[in-house]
Amino acid sequence: MRIILSKTSHPGNIGGVARAMKNMGLSQLSLIAPKSFPHTQAKERASGAVDILNSAQVVPDLEAAIQDCQWVYGTSGRMRAFPWPQLSPREAAAHIKQQADKGQQVAVVFGNEQSGLSNEELQLCDYHIAIPTVPDFGSLNLACAVQIIAYEWYVQSEMKSQETIPMLEEEKASHEAVQGLVSHWTEVAEQVGFFDSAHPKKFIPRLQKLVTKSQLTSEEIHLLRGFLKRVGQRELL
Amino acid sequence: MRIILSKTSHPGNIGGVARAMKNMGLSQLSLIAPKSFPHTQAKERASGAVDILNSAQVVPDLEAAIQDCQWVYGTSGRMRAFPWPQLSPREAAAHIKQQADKGQQVAVVFGNEQSGLSNEELQLCDYHIAIPTVPDFGSLNLACAVQIIAYEWYVQSEMKSQETIPMLEEEKASHEAVQGLVSHWTEVAEQVGFFDSAHPKKFIPRLQKLVTKSQLTSEEIHLLRGFLKRVGQRELL
Repeated sequence: MRIILSKTSHPGNIGGVARAMKNMGLSQLSLIAPKSFPHTQAKERASGAVDILNSAQVVPDLEAAIQDCQWVYGTSGRMRAFPWPQLSPREAAAHIKQQADKGQQVAVVFGNEQSGLSNEELQLCDYHIAIPTVPDFGSLNLACAVQIIAYEWYVQSEMKSQETIPMLEEEKASHEAVQGLVSHWTEVAEQVGFFDSAHPKKFIPRLQKLVTKSQLTSEEIHLLRGFLKRVGQRELL
Repeated sequence: MRIILSKTSHPGNIGGVARAMKNMGLSQLSLIAPKSFPHTQAKERASGAVDILNSAQVVPDLEAAIQDCQWVYGTSGRMRAFPWPQLSPREAAAHIKQQADKGQQVAVVFGNEQSGLSNEELQLCDYHIAIPTVPDFGSLNLACAVQIIAYEWYVQSEMKSQETIPMLEEEKASHEAVQGLVSHWTEVAEQVGFFDSAHPKKFIPRLQKLVTKSQLTSEEIHLLRGFLKRVGQRELL
């Protein structure tokens, strides 16, 4: 399981996250455009987990961080404006465990300390994870939020018997493949005049949501793109 | 549920704990001989939870912090030398919930950042809680450790239906009453020559463990102390 931190402001928090990860046996850390990294405060708060900081990948955006991932979980507060398939940390851990057991790459994404994940980032996620908190004081320290998810993951991974959650039988497509479909679809939608990129309204977010929620397999994406390709070719005739 | 921090070295951690508590709806914080408190670093890390710092009680030792508590849970690493009734964070949360529902005062105690709780402190606890971690990197940040316990407590308190754990029917005695028994017993043991306070060996820890594990009611303590009083009086004849 990969931990991805988006646009972290305080380098100390990155160190705290590395420590929380290592306590629970996690090692893959990706940092999207961190404000200050590397940094001595990160090292200090990491305690003995400097190895995780040293091997952390710094990437420009979420797309780059999840290219090879089949399943992406975004952490969010309870009160998001748009609906999305939502899991508790415990449900997410069970789900992640099942995917990882099948050799799938999974990632959990955490937003900036002040503003959380952007709507654009949340729309790239298969599921949202809402960490339960009291309604009027819901902002957790970043390292503490990672600690809860990593803890649930570790407890789950140590469990002998698994409760099963109904799951896809076939292998889910990578995010790169899903985003390829969204781009292709957008392009064709514009070609056919269904969508005007100068006045996008909510077309792209809606398409993104539809495609993400559908949890498509590679074969399904192949089929859809075959269809879109055909539509595009017809326009050129 | 009260959170007790023993001999905390870094004031920032006290602030982090206050925030973690408030996220999960906890407010009672007791500090045993903190190295630096109050402190600006505590306020900074507390974010919006300064109210918890302001109402925190500072006490000289664990006895003072738990005088009015019926149930005390001490957090410890997995590898403690002496055996003790041990719970996972999840089991502890279920247990705590049942006690709190009956109006009992419960507390969870966290040790110093470097050394954890002392053996003397651990012996005053009814149960030990072991937070699961990988074996070779088991030291959690203090605020993260509190966050896990507070999270499990909150999840438990939000649950509609409870799994029941077999419990005492009668009300458990306060710690003050339990420690009164241990002192009285020790005194009488020395009086009768069973125990030499100049060469204590392991008598007191063993007695402490026996008494604590027994989870005595007030009536049982009353009975035992009546007996001990009688033995002591016989010696004076």
